[in-house]
Amino acid sequence: MPIDRRTVLKTALAAAFAPLIPKADAADAPGPTLALARWLVKVSYADLPASVRKEGVRTLVNWLGAALGGSSHEAVAHAVAALAPLSGPAQASLVGRKERFDVRTTAFINGIASHVLDYDDTHLKTVIHPSVVICPALLAVAEWKPVKGADFLAAQVFGTEVALRIGNAVYPNHYDVGWHITGTAGVFGAAAGVGRLLGLTEQQMVYALGLAASQPVGLRESFGSMNKSFNPGAAASAGILAALLAANGFDSSPAMIEAKRGWANTVSTKQDYREITEGLGVRYEAALNTYKPFPCGIVLHPPIDAALKLRKAAKVDPAAIERVELKVHPLVLELTGKPAPADGLESKFSVYHAVAVAIVEGAAGLKQFSDRAARDPAVLALRGKVKPAVTPGIHEAQADMTIVMKDGRKFHQFIEHAVGSVEAPLSDAELNAKFTDLADGILPPAQAKKAMDACWNVEKLASAGEIAMAARAA
Amino acid sequence: MPIDRRTVLKTALAAAFAPLIPKADAADAPGPTLALARWLVKVSYADLPASVRKEGVRTLVNWLGAALGGSSHEAVAHAVAALAPLSGPAQASLVGRKERFDVRTTAFINGIASHVLDYDDTHLKTVIHPSVVICPALLAVAEWKPVKGADFLAAQVFGTEVALRIGNAVYPNHYDVGWHITGTAGVFGAAAGVGRLLGLTEQQMVYALGLAASQPVGLRESFGSMNKSFNPGAAASAGILAALLAANGFDSSPAMIEAKRGWANTVSTKQDYREITEGLGVRYEAALNTYKPFPCGIVLHPPIDAALKLRKAAKVDPAAIERVELKVHPLVLELTGKPAPADGLESKFSVYHAVAVAIVEGAAGLKQFSDRAARDPAVLALRGKVKPAVTPGIHEAQADMTIVMKDGRKFHQFIEHAVGSVEAPLSDAELNAKFTDLADGILPPAQAKKAMDACWNVEKLASAGEIAMAARAA
Repeated sequence: MPIDRRTVLKTALAAAFAPLIPKADAADAPGPTLALARWLVKVSYADLPASVRKEGVRTLVNWLGAALGGSSHEAVAHAVAALAPLSGPAQASLVGRKERFDVRTTAFINGIASHVLDYDDTHLKTVIHPSVVICPALLAVAEWKPVKGADFLAAQVFGTEVALRIGNAVYPNHYDVGWHITGTAGVFGAAAGVGRLLGLTEQQMVYALGLAASQPVGLRESFGSMNKSFNPGAAASAGILAALLAANGFDSSPAMIEAKRGWANTVSTKQDYREITEGLGVRYEAALNTYKPFPCGIVLHPPIDAALKLRKAAKVDPAAIERVELKVHPLVLELTGKPAPADGLESKFSVYHAVAVAIVEGAAGLKQFSDRAARDPAVLALRGKVKPAVTPGIHEAQADMTIVMKDGRKFHQFIEHAVGSVEAPLSDAELNAKFTDLADGILPPAQAKKAMDACWNVEKLASAGEIAMAARAA
Repeated sequence: MPIDRRTVLKTALAAAFAPLIPKADAADAPGPTLALARWLVKVSYADLPASVRKEGVRTLVNWLGAALGGSSHEAVAHAVAALAPLSGPAQASLVGRKERFDVRTTAFINGIASHVLDYDDTHLKTVIHPSVVICPALLAVAEWKPVKGADFLAAQVFGTEVALRIGNAVYPNHYDVGWHITGTAGVFGAAAGVGRLLGLTEQQMVYALGLAASQPVGLRESFGSMNKSFNPGAAASAGILAALLAANGFDSSPAMIEAKRGWANTVSTKQDYREITEGLGVRYEAALNTYKPFPCGIVLHPPIDAALKLRKAAKVDPAAIERVELKVHPLVLELTGKPAPADGLESKFSVYHAVAVAIVEGAAGLKQFSDRAARDPAVLALRGKVKPAVTPGIHEAQADMTIVMKDGRKFHQFIEHAVGSVEAPLSDAELNAKFTDLADGILPPAQAKKAMDACWNVEKLASAGEIAMAARAA
């Protein structure tokens, strides 16, 4: 832009008055879109604190396990059948399967696989499941264009950070209105991470974020159908598209996140941009990631935890139960209020089923959210006796359960922080056990161990694509 | 679902009281998602009134011309460079170019090409440009899986109808908040039209609409950048994806458009579902499509029309103009308020440029919205004298212009309906001239004529793919 006299005058005046102006002048600070792009192209693996790197590795282990477990789901088979005829060259590998497709098709299908069991990771502040958008995108690109494991992990963590910070800026209003925030915030993370792998300039990164903003994927009405797992898959593919286009000169707005008719104003009635820019590179949201101990909606975890504890402590006979009183946060009924789920997928969004099956079977794993369990007569008999009541003062991370027996006895359990939360995280050993369980029947045990070890050792890998090679079916 | 006693009782009571209940009982009518799906799988080419078919053909002619004209734009070249390495088999042809890609990649790039000049069609009630999402999707699929021209036209018109009716249901709130409604409503049209070409069942069509709803593409902040043309391209590709997945058993919600946390409630504060269902198959929104005489934002057409009329009638000397007073609707400044556009793309969203160039050059075609024109000294001198004023009572389809000369003379022009509107439509001959101008330099004249004729004769074609063959570069 040419510099005119007004600009010269303004600059001179600004210099003269600079000592009088507070340092953190908002008008001088870059907006969130530029701030993120600037940070993304400058920061490196060496800048990551060890604890943040460690959580990134745990996220990767948990992601690959979830993807292996979901790889045999019918939703994945349908997606493969639909897209195989359109796929480009075999650039990347499906997790747990034999097919190899172009990077976008691969990312799309691996995204479905890793989310379809609802057994993935969760940023509890926003209920974003970051890995199921970001890891499929990055792993597919890493197999296509080799990258060192350390740089891969850095891209994963920085991409996750971008998605979670953007999510924080609009949560809860954005989620409350109906968006499946995993896809809508996740696409920024995929674009940012892939943008790093492709070596975007600052300007290109701004455009990649702008093109990502143009593709918010996913509505909450999809919960309980295959469409839910479609959302992270489509967001992963959309993020790759955004970064690839930007790398090839395709432009966008310089301020798509914060502009008047940009992303945040369009998809949310709340916009807190400090959540995006404050402490960027110092405080890591990505370090707050958690991993599900149960393959179902995250708000069901406190009630399940309560049910399992009571079943273990009181050894209740399900047939002798009069009713199960449950005090919950409103979101529990809004998200998981299906009283009579017809199949395994729907049962992941039924508080009635989740509590009943946990009490009947003393477990809440993959087998407890299957078509079999959703139709089990003992579970059906008990789920009608589960009485959730929205109760003021109960946080969505809490649950308060009282089992009332037919003989009048009562058993009570309050959950402050459910197993798997930030306060009670799964241990590395528990993540290993979860991975092994998910890979069972998908990969031979020795290969599953090799794939899991590749994730634990990602920082030392000469090429991150080794993870994809290790996780594909022979 | 099992039938329980309450359902039996309810059914019996309903039958008993049926004579007392008004016929159009909203509770019994299918919701908009199911109503659209049911209609889409039952209606056929033979049901289309001749006038609606005719407008569909005019839409196709105008679309192909716009796509040819845009095919040499740098945005298209960037998209080709980005996606060629990932493309699947050569299933479909880029318009005006030599490359052939898989159907989704082809639809994406042809979508960009047909929108990048802002010279496409417009449904003026919603400012949706329906063809740039729907035609790229349908033509790519038609080349891959041959379909008779009459069935192609039917899919195009029915898909257009779906997109426009869904747009009507949420306009203007949805557009006002920041959505580029062409992409967000258009994706439904692409899914519906492709769903017809793939022979979806009613249930599959419900799921295709649900998966389409999950992918709203495009924000208004993109206007003036390549990202604007990205939006219809991505929506075209998303619509194909939705239909392909549904055809292969991938499911979604039964009511994604109208559910509490579904599409309309999430993307708009207005939901008028009667706009979707009332008179479906009787009254055609698709017949209200219009074609741009000027390659720029549609709200600029009334001011340009006024400027061209005054220039012609009064033969004003641009250098002798003191100022150009212009009374406009608020949307004109919101959408096209850029006072100093830097290049051709930005100039399409500047009322200052549009009025100035029309007066200086006596035309408002492709050459007047080029980088050259955006930097022309005479245009720059005049654009600073254009004074648009938001004026109560002026509709967005109107303009009221007064040119005040330095010698004090004044020339006034009021535009009630601009050229190209429903009330003053381009004639078939004008569409031909526009097509020929757009194809100039892209295809040899004889081939351009052949491609244009293929569109005019689409209903008689044995295979609609012939249009794509005729429009590709040798």
